[in-house]
Amino acid sequence: MDVRGYISDHADTFFDALEAWLSIPSISADPARHDDVRQSADWLVGKLREHGWPVAEVWETGDAADPGLPAVFACWPAEDPAAPVALVYGHHDVQPVEPLDEWDSPPFDPARRDGLLLARGASDDKGQVLFHPLGLSANLAASGAAAPPVTIKLLIEGEEESGSPHFAGLLRRERDRLSCDVVVVSDTTMWAADVPSLCVGMRGIAEAEVQLTGPERDLHSGSFGGAVPNPLHVLASLLAGLHDEAGRVTLPGFYDKVLPVTDAERELIARLPFDEADWLAQAGHSGAAAGESGYSTLERVWTRPTAEINGMWGGHTGPGGKTIIPAQAHAKLSFRLVAEQDPEDVIDALRSYIAAATPPGIDATVISHGNGVRPCFSPVAAPAVGAGMRAMSRAFGTETLLTREGGSGPEADLAEILGAPLVFVGVGLASDRMHAPNERVDMALLLKGAEAAAYLWDELAAIGGELTARR
Amino acid sequence: MDVRGYISDHADTFFDALEAWLSIPSISADPARHDDVRQSADWLVGKLREHGWPVAEVWETGDAADPGLPAVFACWPAEDPAAPVALVYGHHDVQPVEPLDEWDSPPFDPARRDGLLLARGASDDKGQVLFHPLGLSANLAASGAAAPPVTIKLLIEGEEESGSPHFAGLLRRERDRLSCDVVVVSDTTMWAADVPSLCVGMRGIAEAEVQLTGPERDLHSGSFGGAVPNPLHVLASLLAGLHDEAGRVTLPGFYDKVLPVTDAERELIARLPFDEADWLAQAGHSGAAAGESGYSTLERVWTRPTAEINGMWGGHTGPGGKTIIPAQAHAKLSFRLVAEQDPEDVIDALRSYIAAATPPGIDATVISHGNGVRPCFSPVAAPAVGAGMRAMSRAFGTETLLTREGGSGPEADLAEILGAPLVFVGVGLASDRMHAPNERVDMALLLKGAEAAAYLWDELAAIGGELTARR
Repeated sequence: MDVRGYISDHADTFFDALEAWLSIPSISADPARHDDVRQSADWLVGKLREHGWPVAEVWETGDAADPGLPAVFACWPAEDPAAPVALVYGHHDVQPVEPLDEWDSPPFDPARRDGLLLARGASDDKGQVLFHPLGLSANLAASGAAAPPVTIKLLIEGEEESGSPHFAGLLRRERDRLSCDVVVVSDTTMWAADVPSLCVGMRGIAEAEVQLTGPERDLHSGSFGGAVPNPLHVLASLLAGLHDEAGRVTLPGFYDKVLPVTDAERELIARLPFDEADWLAQAGHSGAAAGESGYSTLERVWTRPTAEINGMWGGHTGPGGKTIIPAQAHAKLSFRLVAEQDPEDVIDALRSYIAAATPPGIDATVISHGNGVRPCFSPVAAPAVGAGMRAMSRAFGTETLLTREGGSGPEADLAEILGAPLVFVGVGLASDRMHAPNERVDMALLLKGAEAAAYLWDELAAIGGELTARR
Repeated sequence: MDVRGYISDHADTFFDALEAWLSIPSISADPARHDDVRQSADWLVGKLREHGWPVAEVWETGDAADPGLPAVFACWPAEDPAAPVALVYGHHDVQPVEPLDEWDSPPFDPARRDGLLLARGASDDKGQVLFHPLGLSANLAASGAAAPPVTIKLLIEGEEESGSPHFAGLLRRERDRLSCDVVVVSDTTMWAADVPSLCVGMRGIAEAEVQLTGPERDLHSGSFGGAVPNPLHVLASLLAGLHDEAGRVTLPGFYDKVLPVTDAERELIARLPFDEADWLAQAGHSGAAAGESGYSTLERVWTRPTAEINGMWGGHTGPGGKTIIPAQAHAKLSFRLVAEQDPEDVIDALRSYIAAATPPGIDATVISHGNGVRPCFSPVAAPAVGAGMRAMSRAFGTETLLTREGGSGPEADLAEILGAPLVFVGVGLASDRMHAPNERVDMALLLKGAEAAAYLWDELAAIGGELTARR
C-alpha cells in the first residue's frame, strides 16, 4: 500500500482521534485549565503508543520552585544507529477562546463544515502535530519496514501559547536525549491551499528602552525656552536619525552580520502570488507600502532587519496645554533581526549611537533586559530544506515555494541549543483564524501534511550523509 | 517739598496702609475668598479717594451668565484736556498660599524684617499698585499743582492670578473710558536691587497639537514591520525637522515678521550682570546653555522666538515591551513668539510644514484652539520707554538698563485693545518669592517705585507731543 492510499484509508480514524484531542481544553495561559493541559499530554502519549512508538512519555518542565506544564517526548529509532536523527517540534497547548460569543460552535466541541474542522487548536497546533504519527504509520505501511528510515523524535511542548517560559531550560536539560541532525517544525502556515511552501526563516528581535533626562524638573518654557535643551527635541532627533533616507537603519555595524537574501530565494519569493493591495488592506493602511529601498514588500518583512519605535512619551500628555520644557523623554524600541544578527550586538550598537548623538547636558540611558530572540534561517541550498521541498512537492503534486516569517518564535532556541538546522513543514493557512474565534483547519491539507511527513523521512534518509556530516 | 522728601515723610503711613490691604486675603482662585477680593477692591477705592482721586470706582467684570471678580478704575485728569493720558495697570488679587506650613509668618498677617515686608501680595502686586497713589501725591506736593501734569488712569484687575478670564472683555467694553496714550504696567521685576531696569517686552505664544494616524489599529511589528510606515517614526522626523543645525525654527516664514533686536538693546542687555552658571543651576540643568546660534542666553529667552515640544506620546507606554507599529502618534507644541509675530501665522505655517512633510499613508491633523497670546514690545527708542528710563534713573540715582520677559502675559491685550505703547515700571525682584511661601518685598524699593512713578508723570508730560501724536 502506498502512502497516499494508507492515509486515505485511515482518514476517518485520524479525524475522530483529532476531535477527541481537540475536546480537551488545554489552555496553558489559564491556570484553571492546567489539568486539561496535563490530560492533553497524557492523551498524546497514549495515541503515540497506539501507533507503535517505542518511546512516548510525559516530560515535566520547570522545577519545584517554578513548575511548568508538561511536554511530550517520543522516539522511534531507525534500525541503523548511524541514520540521521530528525526531531519534530510542535505544541499541544492552545490559545484562550475569548470572546466566546463570537464562536459559531463551542471551541472545544469540534464541528465539521465544508471540509473544515472547527475547534480551538485545530490548526494551531494539534492538527499539525497529529499528522506526524499518521504520516509515520503511512511511511512504514508503504515500506513494509518495522522502523523508520531515520530516527524520529517528537518534542511537543505544553507552554507555547504562554511564551514557552520553560522551553529553553528543557532543551538544555535534555540536550542529550534530544540530540538530532535536523529539526522539523510543524507549527506554521503555507502560502495558500494551492501554493505549498516551506518557511525558511523567522526574524529575531532585540528590545530596549531609551530614557533621556534633561533639567531636574519640568521648566517654564517662557523663562527657559530657547536656551536649555529640551529632552523631547533630543529624543525626536535621535529617533529620526535611526533611519537614513533610503530607509536603512543607521546604527553602526547594524548590517555587518546580515546574510544577504540570495538571488535564488528572491526569485522564489517573487513567484509567490502576492496581492499587495490586499495585504495593505489587512494592515488597515491606506497608503502605499514603504520601507528600505531596493526590496519588495515581502523581502522587507521577511529578509530585512528593522528598527521600530513601539512607544514614545514625555512631558504633558493630558488635556489642554502646558508650556514646559519637560525633564524627561522616553521611547521603547524594538529591532527585528535576520540571520546572522545577534540581539546583543544590536543593543550595543544602539548604546553607542545614543551615547554619541546625545548632546551635552542630556543624560541618556539605554535599558535592555537582554531578552532578545535570535533570528533563525535555513538557506535555500541547505540539504534539509531541499528534502522538505521535495516531500511537500510529492504530497501536493506541484512546485513548492519558499516563505519566511516576519515574527519571532522559540524555534531559534531549538536551532541554537540543539545545534541542528530547521525545516518548517506546516500546512496551516493564514485564513485558519489561529488565536481568534472560529479557528479552523482545512481537513484535506492536514492529510497532505501527513503525506508530506511520510515522504520527508525517506527524503532525509536519502541525504543522510549530508545531514550527519555535521556531527 | 521735593518728591523724595514727601515720600520719606509719608513712608510710615504708606506701609501701614499697605499692611491693612495685605491683610485682606484676596485669592481670586479660591471661591471661598471671592468676598475678600471684593473687599480688597473696596479698600483700594477708599484709599484712592483718601488720596484725593476725583474718580475711583469698582468695576464689575463678566456678565450674569459668567460673573467675574471686580476691578478698580480710577482717574485723575490733568488740567489741560490735551495732555497725554497714562493708564496704570496692576492687580489686587493674590496667589493661593499653600503650602501654609512653609510660611515663617502667616501670609495675611504682614511682618517686617530686615527692611522686608513679608505677606502674600507684598510684591505681586499690591505693593507695586499702592506706590502709585503715594507717587502721585508726592508729584502734586512737589509741583504745588492741584492736578497731575498728565491725565492718570488706574485699572487694577481682580483676576490676574486666575488667568484674567474677563480682562480682554472688560478692556473692549470700557475702551472709551480706558483710552490712553501710554500704558504703565507695574507688575514686573527689575534686574536687581542695585540695577534698576525696565522691561520692554514679553514673548507671545502659539499652541497646537499634532496628531498622526497610520494604520487603523496597532499592527504586529513582526508581520508588518519594515513595510508599513510607523507614525512614531514620522512624528520623530517631523519634530526633529522643526529646527535646523543652527537651532533656528524651520517653519516657512517663521522669522518674516520678527523685529530684529537692535544693537542698542543688545548692548544694554550685555551690560546686565548676568551669572549664566547660576541661571543654569536654577534651571536644574547640568550642561551648557544651548539654542539658536548667534545669540546670548538672555537674547535667546527674551528676544528670539522658539518652538518647543511640550509633550509627546504614542504606542505602548506601559511596563514591558509590546512589539507594535502603533496606529497613532501625538505631540503638543508651543511657540514663544516675539514682536511682530502673529500666533495665527505661526499655526498656519505649522500646518503647511506638517502637510508638506508628512509622507503618504499617514494622516496628519494640527489642532489649535486659537488661544494664542501676542507678543508685546516697546522699542528702546520709543519716547515712553525713554521717559520711563529717566524716571527710574532719577529715583535710583543710577543708569537704568533694559530687560524683557520670556513668558507671556495679559499685557499684550492692553497694548492691542487700547492701541497704546507699554512701559513697564516695576520694582519687584526675582528673589521676592512671588507665587511661593514667604513672599516679600524690599520696602526701600517700594519707596523708590513711588518716587519713579512721581517723576514719570513729569517725564511723560515733557514728551507729551510725541505721545499724543499717535491719536
